Amino acid sequence: MAKLLVLYKTPPDTAAFDKHYAEVHISLVHKIPNLEKFEVTKGPIMTPMGPSTYYFIAELHFADLATLQASFASPEGRTAGEDAMTNLGQMDMLIYESHAA
Amino acid sequence: MAKLLVLYKTPPDTAAFDKHYAEVHISLVHKIPNLEKFEVTKGPIMTPMGPSTYYFIAELHFADLATLQASFASPEGRTAGEDAMTNLGQMDMLIYESHAA
Repeated sequence: MAKLLVLYKTPPDTAAFDKHYAEVHISLVHKIPNLEKFEVTKGPIMTPMGPSTYYFIAELHFADLATLQASFASPEGRTAGEDAMTNLGQMDMLIYESHAA
Repeated sequence: MAKLLVLYKTPPDTAAFDKHYAEVHISLVHKIPNLEKFEVTKGPIMTPMGPSTYYFIAELHFADLATLQASFASPEGRTAGEDAMTNLGQMDMLIYESHAA
């Protein structure tokens, strides 16, 4: 299983972020080909030291890394990526394969 | 679903990290009460800009945040946490609830 983790930094206007994510971005992500699972955080991101600098995390699953890469290179993948970059502020992205331990 | 993400920074000795994780840490994590799912990365952690500063990511799932917190406060949870702190170098931890988008 290949995963993309999108870790959004706390935006200046969290209400605007929430609204754009819910009303625009979610449906763009659902259009990405071969997306197997799409999860988002609910509530705050915490650390053992207290609140995180991240506001929101999205997790996208694909069968493998090649599929993930092809999916983000597709027109739907580019559209979702550009929407995030343009409208959802700063973010870190991590891409990796994972399996049961 | 509540998740703990443990993001291990690249250690000075990756072979020693791999060996300790596989031979000691995995079995300690599996002893944590109420652990519903335990996944680890396979291969490099990437970003859109190239390699990440993280070497390895572990994802632990629990039914909810209260269960996660109680599980880490248990003797088995403390043992696994202390083993990571002592033997697995620097890490970031993120704790959050997530659900299907």
